Amino acid sequence: MSDIENVNERLNRQFRFLLEVDRLKGIQRQNILADASRRENSAEHSWHLALLAIILAEHSPIPENLDIFKVVKMVLMHDLVEIDAGDAFLQNPEEERIQVAKEARAAERIFSLLPEDQSAELISLWEEFEMGTTPEASFARALDRVQPALLHDATNAVVWAEHGVTEQQILHKMEVVRKSAPRLWPKIWSIIRRAADEGKLR
Amino acid sequence: MSDIENVNERLNRQFRFLLEVDRLKGIQRQNILADASRRENSAEHSWHLALLAIILAEHSPIPENLDIFKVVKMVLMHDLVEIDAGDAFLQNPEEERIQVAKEARAAERIFSLLPEDQSAELISLWEEFEMGTTPEASFARALDRVQPALLHDATNAVVWAEHGVTEQQILHKMEVVRKSAPRLWPKIWSIIRRAADEGKLR
Repeated sequence: MSDIENVNERLNRQFRFLLEVDRLKGIQRQNILADASRRENSAEHSWHLALLAIILAEHSPIPENLDIFKVVKMVLMHDLVEIDAGDAFLQNPEEERIQVAKEARAAERIFSLLPEDQSAELISLWEEFEMGTTPEASFARALDRVQPALLHDATNAVVWAEHGVTEQQILHKMEVVRKSAPRLWPKIWSIIRRAADEGKLR
Repeated sequence: MSDIENVNERLNRQFRFLLEVDRLKGIQRQNILADASRRENSAEHSWHLALLAIILAEHSPIPENLDIFKVVKMVLMHDLVEIDAGDAFLQNPEEERIQVAKEARAAERIFSLLPEDQSAELISLWEEFEMGTTPEASFARALDRVQPALLHDATNAVVWAEHGVTEQQILHKMEVVRKSAPRLWPKIWSIIRRAADEGKLR
């Protein structure tokens, strides 16, 4: 294959992927926007998370050793699997197991649209995020909890109240913030306290 | 000021900024999504652009010397001024002059919510994008034309047809792609040709 054919083949695959990902804009999340006008979609959420990563990087436990661009790439890509698997509200371990399998198939299908080298890189980045064990992945996962908490706080926790969630469930969900981004924990704690004090949590 | 007070003051300003930017999700653009379901908003557009930057970086004129994280930060932030200034459809130089002044005031107000060091950095990044003279800014500006072109192509150029735009106007708008991302130009050229052949351009 000539160099020009190779470039064209790469571009074709890349444009195919870049058109496919447009569908993330149609995936609705549980939380609503700060102005309470409508539910948020996963593309907007991913954009917002990338801004959190850039602005809050200094508060990571290891700011001088964190690869912040890697965190940004992770949060931009982490929800692409929802194009096939949806944004599930999981109630039990069995549902969780099914969702994990769905998401793995989705990652395989969607990232494989890209040239092989990029596909391998992004599948590996997504798996790293899912595992949550590296500093970048654990910080990204903490931010993924902080962002909706900011919106819940701005909208007087109306979605938490509607879903009838308990303080224990929220504390469990937010545990990753306390562990992986402790400097952001006081903010989260104050958001939970306010929701509890105002009777929004069961 | 103690270190803890300093951290708290920085966090307060950062969270204030991160809540304010949520409003970008309510700014409607002219183009529609690939599934033609509705108009795109500027937050989704910025997310999509960041993916284009990461996936298409190798096609920049100087891939080995391009600071791709800088390009990503630029495209994530470039439209924040629309929170105050809107996504204007400009018809003449006088309207353009007014819009430029509006956007400069918007950048000042919005980025100044952040701690001073971050505010200065982001205003400078936004100005660099607006000037469009560095390799990062010119590549970012080219991508900002490529992304809506992909969506116009996916939706049979219905928005171009509705606005009654001419082939000359599109060629003028897309000139930055030919100049700053020539390897992406054949795709843009084929999109324009198809729209013209199908009678969508005046």
